[in-house]
Amino acid sequence: MTVLASIREAPGLESYLDELEERLQETVASHPGIAAAVGADALAAGGKRLRPMLVFLASRPDAPPPLAAGVAVELIHMATLVHDDLIDGAQFRRGRAAAWAAYGPAAARAAGDYLFARAFAELSTAGEPRAVAMLAEATLCLARGEALQRRQTHDPDTTVESYLERCALKTAKLFEAACLLGSRGRDVALGRFGLTLGIAFQITDDILDCTGDGLETGKIAGVDLREGTPTLPLLLAASEDDVVRRALAGGPPDGALVRVAGTTALARSRAIALDYACRARACLDGQFHRDELEALADLVVHRHS
Amino acid sequence: MTVLASIREAPGLESYLDELEERLQETVASHPGIAAAVGADALAAGGKRLRPMLVFLASRPDAPPPLAAGVAVELIHMATLVHDDLIDGAQFRRGRAAAWAAYGPAAARAAGDYLFARAFAELSTAGEPRAVAMLAEATLCLARGEALQRRQTHDPDTTVESYLERCALKTAKLFEAACLLGSRGRDVALGRFGLTLGIAFQITDDILDCTGDGLETGKIAGVDLREGTPTLPLLLAASEDDVVRRALAGGPPDGALVRVAGTTALARSRAIALDYACRARACLDGQFHRDELEALADLVVHRHS
Repeated sequence: MTVLASIREAPGLESYLDELEERLQETVASHPGIAAAVGADALAAGGKRLRPMLVFLASRPDAPPPLAAGVAVELIHMATLVHDDLIDGAQFRRGRAAAWAAYGPAAARAAGDYLFARAFAELSTAGEPRAVAMLAEATLCLARGEALQRRQTHDPDTTVESYLERCALKTAKLFEAACLLGSRGRDVALGRFGLTLGIAFQITDDILDCTGDGLETGKIAGVDLREGTPTLPLLLAASEDDVVRRALAGGPPDGALVRVAGTTALARSRAIALDYACRARACLDGQFHRDELEALADLVVHRHS
Repeated sequence: MTVLASIREAPGLESYLDELEERLQETVASHPGIAAAVGADALAAGGKRLRPMLVFLASRPDAPPPLAAGVAVELIHMATLVHDDLIDGAQFRRGRAAAWAAYGPAAARAAGDYLFARAFAELSTAGEPRAVAMLAEATLCLARGEALQRRQTHDPDTTVESYLERCALKTAKLFEAACLLGSRGRDVALGRFGLTLGIAFQITDDILDCTGDGLETGKIAGVDLREGTPTLPLLLAASEDDVVRRALAGGPPDGALVRVAGTTALARSRAIALDYACRARACLDGQFHRDELEALADLVVHRHS
């Protein structure tokens, strides 16, 4: 990915990410046991480290890079994935067995709790109580987003507004927190950038789940439809096609995923994602890392996995 | 309980606990939604508020009572219970339906995560980064204790040492944290008191599970034996009685719980719990609330629920 390579050329970012990786490994290994093993596995499975990258790019180049915040945000993200897979019964994560499938539900639960606690411990050492409160707030939102998703399951009448609220809670609030933590809580515009970018990211994720473009990275297409999660493309498709609507409501699949591609839903969803990315870019006036953040906004909506 | 009534007479404790209850309710209700509903339920189910009481009794009478620490410790405890029941598939908690049974696993997971995050948010407002690190450490221990319990399940050869390690991790470390937070991290002896008391508490809990004395409060006796959790009384009984040993290892129950009562295991376990309570009391020289903490140590090992 050449865009990503150009972003990584931001002075200091590469070494920040290297240090981050080291700190994540130390953090997870600090208490031996099954929780650490699950954490190490989750770490080894990789990921884009998009949230720590936001933390870095939201920070001032003339201040020490906010490493603890980057570590904390990524640990919260990892904790959420471990708990998500456990509750969803998802067998795989990034092409590997999910933690609960490999180690059992109790270990996955403990590992998730462990990663949450380590995130707050990391951030507390940085000595900024407002930062801890901010991360706690974002974590609350993740939990509320998950709960909201559960309530919306199999409901083809979910409004686009409440879908967007879910995106904000379960994804964008942590992007926002990353930007706020990076700018040490001072930059409201960067927070808005993160929030808008997060929604663009989630819509794109939901489109990828329909098109199966993520297959190469170990994801399986059509998970949302199978589980009855009303995403933007599925909601738009359901309004055009009764077979999709019935499948989303929990009825027979009947090749509904193929039918989604026959509607205008994917194109309309893409347009909405692009609009959010555009709105995100509009928040970047006068930012230190404006070029890199703009490139990141493009990357998020144009990625294939 | 007259002992508890006399402890509650400590100047300021009653109003501290009232304020705590109010703050817990506000905290849980601060974000409407299913996670808050589960939290409110968990709160309404009551509990002894033993950990906040420790926070208060570990504090200096001439300083403002450490309310945020008490709230945070109780929230961590509640979060753990919600996640425990979810993973154990326990249908009831204090005579009411467990959160996951009432609201579903996803809501219970979200509620647990939510309560964790709120705990750290509460504590961070108190502006003591060391306190946040201390609570995070205790939370890690809870998770590690749960994972250790899983590894020991159905193993009648679990050593008493590793049983005690489990008690320390899953119970006593939070008691220790409560005392350390109450004394604002300064009092090592109070930390030792909390740790020792927590072990006495857990052994007593495990005895109550064998005798069924907790039945009146909605607990069901024999859960540990049925789930193959090697507690002190069960381990000691298994060393005397092969039927108990086989049941603990996952074999047929064969009235094994009744046979436990026929061994010396309960009396020996009680003696060990009393010894820990005695060691706890020995840490209290020169403490402000020495009388109340001594009474609490007695109460913990002599309770019937």
